[in-house]
Amino acid sequence: MSQATSKYRFHLINAFSLSESSSFRLRSFAGPKESIIYNYQDVAPFLDGIEWDVHPGAPASHGDWPVEKQEEFASVGVNRLPLVREACRSGKYNAIVLLGGGDPGFWPAREIGREYDIPVTTAAHSQMHIAGMLGNKFSIVDISETHNMQMYNLVVQYRFTDKCASIRNVNYPLPRPRHDDPGSIEAEKEKASRGEPSGMLEAAEREAIAAIEEDGAEVILLGCSAAFWLQPFLQRRLAAAGWDVPVLEGFRCAIELAKLFVDLGVGSSGLMIPSERPVRWRRKKTF
Amino acid sequence: MSQATSKYRFHLINAFSLSESSSFRLRSFAGPKESIIYNYQDVAPFLDGIEWDVHPGAPASHGDWPVEKQEEFASVGVNRLPLVREACRSGKYNAIVLLGGGDPGFWPAREIGREYDIPVTTAAHSQMHIAGMLGNKFSIVDISETHNMQMYNLVVQYRFTDKCASIRNVNYPLPRPRHDDPGSIEAEKEKASRGEPSGMLEAAEREAIAAIEEDGAEVILLGCSAAFWLQPFLQRRLAAAGWDVPVLEGFRCAIELAKLFVDLGVGSSGLMIPSERPVRWRRKKTF
Amino acid sequence: MSQATSKYRFHLINAFSLSESSSFRLRSFAGPKESIIYNYQDVAPFLDGIEWDVHPGAPASHGDWPVEKQEEFASVGVNRLPLVREACRSGKYNAIVLLGGGDPGFWPAREIGREYDIPVTTAAHSQMHIAGMLGNKFSIVDISETHNMQMYNLVVQYRFTDKCASIRNVNYPLPRPRHDDPGSIEAEKEKASRGEPSGMLEAAEREAIAAIEEDGAEVILLGCSAAFWLQPFLQRRLAAAGWDVPVLEGFRCAIELAKLFVDLGVGSSGLMIPSERPVRWRRKKTF
Amino acid sequence: MSQATSKYRFHLINAFSLSESSSFRLRSFAGPKESIIYNYQDVAPFLDGIEWDVHPGAPASHGDWPVEKQEEFASVGVNRLPLVREACRSGKYNAIVLLGGGDPGFWPAREIGREYDIPVTTAAHSQMHIAGMLGNKFSIVDISETHNMQMYNLVVQYRFTDKCASIRNVNYPLPRPRHDDPGSIEAEKEKASRGEPSGMLEAAEREAIAAIEEDGAEVILLGCSAAFWLQPFLQRRLAAAGWDVPVLEGFRCAIELAKLFVDLGVGSSGLMIPSERPVRWRRKKTF
Amino acid sequence: MSQATSKYRFHLINAFSLSESSSFRLRSFAGPKESIIYNYQDVAPFLDGIEWDVHPGAPASHGDWPVEKQEEFASVGVNRLPLVREACRSGKYNAIVLLGGGDPGFWPAREIGREYDIPVTTAAHSQMHIAGMLGNKFSIVDISETHNMQMYNLVVQYRFTDKCASIRNVNYPLPRPRHDDPGSIEAEKEKASRGEPSGMLEAAEREAIAAIEEDGAEVILLGCSAAFWLQPFLQRRLAAAGWDVPVLEGFRCAIELAKLFVDLGVGSSGLMIPSERPVRWRRKKTF
Amino acid sequence: MSQATSKYRFHLINAFSLSESSSFRLRSFAGPKESIIYNYQDVAPFLDGIEWDVHPGAPASHGDWPVEKQEEFASVGVNRLPLVREACRSGKYNAIVLLGGGDPGFWPAREIGREYDIPVTTAAHSQMHIAGMLGNKFSIVDISETHNMQMYNLVVQYRFTDKCASIRNVNYPLPRPRHDDPGSIEAEKEKASRGEPSGMLEAAEREAIAAIEEDGAEVILLGCSAAFWLQPFLQRRLAAAGWDVPVLEGFRCAIELAKLFVDLGVGSSGLMIPSERPVRWRRKKTF
Repeated sequence: MSQATSKYRFHLINAFSLSESSSFRLRSFAGPKESIIYNYQDVAPFLDGIEWDVHPGAPASHGDWPVEKQEEFASVGVNRLPLVREACRSGKYNAIVLLGGGDPGFWPAREIGREYDIPVTTAAHSQMHIAGMLGNKFSIVDISETHNMQMYNLVVQYRFTDKCASIRNVNYPLPRPRHDDPGSIEAEKEKASRGEPSGMLEAAEREAIAAIEEDGAEVILLGCSAAFWLQPFLQRRLAAAGWDVPVLEGFRCAIELAKLFVDLGVGSSGLMIPSERPVRWRRKKTF
Repeated sequence: MSQATSKYRFHLINAFSLSESSSFRLRSFAGPKESIIYNYQDVAPFLDGIEWDVHPGAPASHGDWPVEKQEEFASVGVNRLPLVREACRSGKYNAIVLLGGGDPGFWPAREIGREYDIPVTTAAHSQMHIAGMLGNKFSIVDISETHNMQMYNLVVQYRFTDKCASIRNVNYPLPRPRHDDPGSIEAEKEKASRGEPSGMLEAAEREAIAAIEEDGAEVILLGCSAAFWLQPFLQRRLAAAGWDVPVLEGFRCAIELAKLFVDLGVGSSGLMIPSERPVRWRRKKTF
Repeated sequence: MSQATSKYRFHLINAFSLSESSSFRLRSFAGPKESIIYNYQDVAPFLDGIEWDVHPGAPASHGDWPVEKQEEFASVGVNRLPLVREACRSGKYNAIVLLGGGDPGFWPAREIGREYDIPVTTAAHSQMHIAGMLGNKFSIVDISETHNMQMYNLVVQYRFTDKCASIRNVNYPLPRPRHDDPGSIEAEKEKASRGEPSGMLEAAEREAIAAIEEDGAEVILLGCSAAFWLQPFLQRRLAAAGWDVPVLEGFRCAIELAKLFVDLGVGSSGLMIPSERPVRWRRKKTF
Repeated sequence: MSQATSKYRFHLINAFSLSESSSFRLRSFAGPKESIIYNYQDVAPFLDGIEWDVHPGAPASHGDWPVEKQEEFASVGVNRLPLVREACRSGKYNAIVLLGGGDPGFWPAREIGREYDIPVTTAAHSQMHIAGMLGNKFSIVDISETHNMQMYNLVVQYRFTDKCASIRNVNYPLPRPRHDDPGSIEAEKEKASRGEPSGMLEAAEREAIAAIEEDGAEVILLGCSAAFWLQPFLQRRLAAAGWDVPVLEGFRCAIELAKLFVDLGVGSSGLMIPSERPVRWRRKKTF
Repeated sequence: MSQATSKYRFHLINAFSLSESSSFRLRSFAGPKESIIYNYQDVAPFLDGIEWDVHPGAPASHGDWPVEKQEEFASVGVNRLPLVREACRSGKYNAIVLLGGGDPGFWPAREIGREYDIPVTTAAHSQMHIAGMLGNKFSIVDISETHNMQMYNLVVQYRFTDKCASIRNVNYPLPRPRHDDPGSIEAEKEKASRGEPSGMLEAAEREAIAAIEEDGAEVILLGCSAAFWLQPFLQRRLAAAGWDVPVLEGFRCAIELAKLFVDLGVGSSGLMIPSERPVRWRRKKTF
Repeated sequence: MSQATSKYRFHLINAFSLSESSSFRLRSFAGPKESIIYNYQDVAPFLDGIEWDVHPGAPASHGDWPVEKQEEFASVGVNRLPLVREACRSGKYNAIVLLGGGDPGFWPAREIGREYDIPVTTAAHSQMHIAGMLGNKFSIVDISETHNMQMYNLVVQYRFTDKCASIRNVNYPLPRPRHDDPGSIEAEKEKASRGEPSGMLEAAEREAIAAIEEDGAEVILLGCSAAFWLQPFLQRRLAAAGWDVPVLEGFRCAIELAKLFVDLGVGSSGLMIPSERPVRWRRKKTF
């Protein structure tokens, strides 16, 4: 990134990177920056006019496979905090966008951002807030039991339990050792891209419609970033079925909120995420 | 507005206009478009790079004074719907921004916008959603009993009762016939601008701090658009007092959400605000 | 109405009236007062012993068809406010009962009533409050997507989201131009009255039972006033099916609450709906 | 009660009666029926035109003093159930009104009433429902710690926790053995009636205003029936202080809801309070 | 019970006892103490190392059959209070465990316990609190409409409405006069114990799985003590079906919380359940 | 720990350990196991009869000072997961008790425990659940702005927002570099232990009483483990002031719940915290 001519100078940070030798790679972890963003083709127009860099993600230390369990989310969350701090310190960026679907490390990353007056945004948090503007309730279409419960915990933590109609499971778990289904999501994505029937897309449509008809969803979110490729497909399918329902995906939402925060000059309240020793302190906090 | 070279083409519509002869005018209702926006100096940077028009507001039919009562809010809300429809029909705009603090006519305006796939945003709705991203709870600093209760109803309607810590009253009502305090808010604004002590600003600071210390507010909103001028003053006062708390104002928030909606190509769910005879219907709705 | 001999002197105001030439008339808009109340035969015993007048409703200015959209509700709501004020001013009445199912103009009408110490009641608001006394949760059986969402907004605004199990849709929309189903509800009503099978009644029974069995409803309300005729039919059907569940309709409920308010000498709190410049003001409001 | 000429035939049942020799008598337990109702002078207009009887209450078996503790409420609640059943069985009444402030025995009494299709109403339940119609939130002004917590439990059980701003304590407990303050409430009532200063009335005013200014109350209820005498005094005091806030008392509210239920022909849903072996049963219940 | 050598000295009190001649006896009401506890074989390990007595329950005064209706719950609740007081007064016990599924008399029993600083625990209350630690939501599998609604009221009273996914009904009501199904639950229990198919167990499994799949339950409770025998059977069935979901039963939970309270030296807050005339009183209570 | 003769074999794991050379040591990080538990003298009776080991905590990698910020909590949370796994794998323990006040790493530790069918408990989670059994609402007395907000997040995550009346701040932050107040909490503890006035104890009493009188707290919890020493002092102070309110501390509560889970053979639902690839999966999750 050369000279700062844009209003927006963003650093995008992936959730983690796997080794060259990993047999569970869902995206590139090196190469041109466009290749490092999972669903770049969908995100590209939103990065237009922005000066941006992307980091492939800190090397995973939990193992050489993707993240689904609580322990794995906690681990990659902590691993990317030094990247956040480094990006803030560099003076090159005015916002940090955390990629990855289950928001690993978001709250401490936000705390770091506050030290430097730099807003930090992330996928699920951004999707939920934008969904809340568009409909009375939203549902999350997501990939697996373990990932679902990470989304569940985020819904609770972000206080959207009244707005989240349901989390719907298509049951396409991420590849892991000792389970012989590596690559299935990638295969589904490719089938769908070629216009062939995709079981994952079918399941997503079925669950989205069940969420609409049975659970009260008026907006659909996608949970895991490995499901973000579904967005244009699912949006078209629902429209074709007569359902006028927005389908949101995480990266675009996170980029958009980063723009909004840069424009407004805000990031988060110093009372929600206090600095080390704040000048003023409150005798009480309430809910 | 000449040729459409900007990504954003916004029509801003004031809540109402009063007659030339009204003795209760808080802002211009004609003249250069900049003069028609209440706190233009604060809003200007947010309109930079946008092609925009502003409408002074439909002539008030409830009387020749500003709006505070339920009947008045309902009346001006309906009066501006034809302006919304006309702006949508014109094909000139890709978003409508409703000015005015108590959001008169917002829901039906949003319904009209949906017919044309044009998002509609407004002050209080935008502030509350953005406040919800920045802190656990927000309080609204507002001008009078009647206006407070309009804000109260909006908090309920937008389902922010869990996030709204309180509505705080500075008790500077809008001018009305039969009450001899016309112009007082304007006088306060001018005093503050001259750096002189302003009772309204003092009250706003006192109530904002009480909201922080007693009610649990972590973000401060301003209610009536006649109080939006307070934003930079109050933000500085709180910072000087050691409180690192965002103060939000309505017009900038509404403009920002309009940009976000244009970028994402969304406005509102067709299930929350259905079209006349939607293709698909749901057997049930839940809360 | 001659001399005031009754304890209760009520003015009933319909939501709107259509022109003589409208092809979308669901009831009379002129003639003997009994003919102007939609389901008079059901309501009659509740008006017994009361001195009452009824207004056919302000002429609709949104178009010459019934009300279902947000814009239409807002419009007729404002249009009937002068009738409310006129009735209050006349000194002839000690309560105003707003007819019509989606409560257009209720809150500002209540504000007007407070100026004259005259309670104002309306259909949905009354039904929900009475339903809350009778069971843990209620469901609303209603006519169409657009009308459902008006009911949805009322449930939120009246803060019954915890008590409303669901809104159930029979999908018999009101007649509108450009949609060739005029008169269908009237046809259904007539079929049911003749003891013939009525699709609308079948749907109402099916949805009410689904609300009971699946959604947790313990009381059934009817949404649109064009569905109020269902009350005796649906109540009998549910009883015959073994379900001991009250079915409420709006006009009787609104008349009953009007009596209750007249007896108790109350209408609404001056803090919820303040007068123009109340003697006392509160520094804060909470939720 | 001679011939049934009224629409309403009510049996009023006090919560309990004490012995002739009790030194803790707050009202008559025998004599003309008017003398048996605690605040008859306030209630009289509401009984006008009604055929009514009143029972002095089953003899207290918990001891010869009034009721404040959980054990005492449970005991007198069970003791009056045979009176409810007897009244229902007699065929003389079309509604039962339970007197007494903490609603002892209400739910089982309602269950008995349902066997005979006779509605049963009671003080706190009626007050809370009516308060909910009049304002966003209500507070309860009540007499003592133990009685407060009975009211607290009722607020939870009736699901008004979102609407109850607070319970405010004037700390005038009921007389009990081993505590030498017998008769104090009576003394306060007499002082107030004579126009002399009453500490209890002062406390009620102070706490009501604190509830309004600090807790968000927009309606005031009175908790224990021994505080119902405060209603006209407190209503006048608040009005004089400029607060336009309804003050409700239990007996009038309970009588009014009894009328409403008789008119509508309802009492409670057979799903909320099922009969012994209902014809239909539900697989699930939800909240 | 001879000398106090155990840390725990518990008195278990059944909800009620029926006469020798009752034809509706579900368990022994006399004989060795082990025979008096409904599902002793399941509870025994939890009583190991504890000095304990059990009371068969106060003789039922509502009739000679088990408890399902509100009136019956109220009656047996009051009837066992003298047993609670007597046990507290005896000085022999350091905790009271109330047996029986619908928690009759729990709150006043707790009040009595507080006079003697002796904790009191009971089945449903304990199950709900422990369930809340184990999963996001729980469902209650219970026996009949009337008993379901008692459980419903307890869920409300204990403030678990957000955590209780549903109450599921197997529809095996308790035996009552005038209904010719005496003994059916006992018959089911015996069939299941012999390894034969049991309709009640089948229904419990079906409803538990529906609660898991449809309602969001992550823990299963059993409602009526007459269903507690299902615990080991249902736990095994769910495990065999692949559902890793705890099934809780009331007696073990109540015994465990009694141990916990004895260890911690607590029972309940003196503010939630005040003593007769507490030293300190609060001006207000909030929710 | 030699042979397994106790029913309970617990491994206690501190949140972190600092270096020998750290100037910010609040407790021992080596030596006899009793010295490694912060408030051992209070906890000792609860460990009586238990076979237990304690780990001093994984060496802090965030810096050589205690934990208060989000980043620090995340870091030490992840650092102790290998200790949890190692303890589970060893086969020596039937429960893991996480020491430390802000529950770092609790959810992933629980996930690890589930792999081995070993329950994991922790301080704040245990305190909140036990507090919920004892009173309607609890408040948390805690040490500093940053630590308060960690507690705040836990209240949200554990879904106790309705039960937590407030978090009260005594403003005694933990020692950190660049802030010259090291050791102040230790000094306060020593002063209190010697019977001398302690500002921290005074503040705790003042805030606890404010929580009781103003916020509605009926139980008091302590937030940071560095405040757990306050428990006996604060309990005595409140009792002396006439407030009969339980004060809970984290370690005892966590140990007690560990016993309860071992007894019941449960830990957490496999639906709330799923295993890697569960046998059964749910199509939807709800809140």
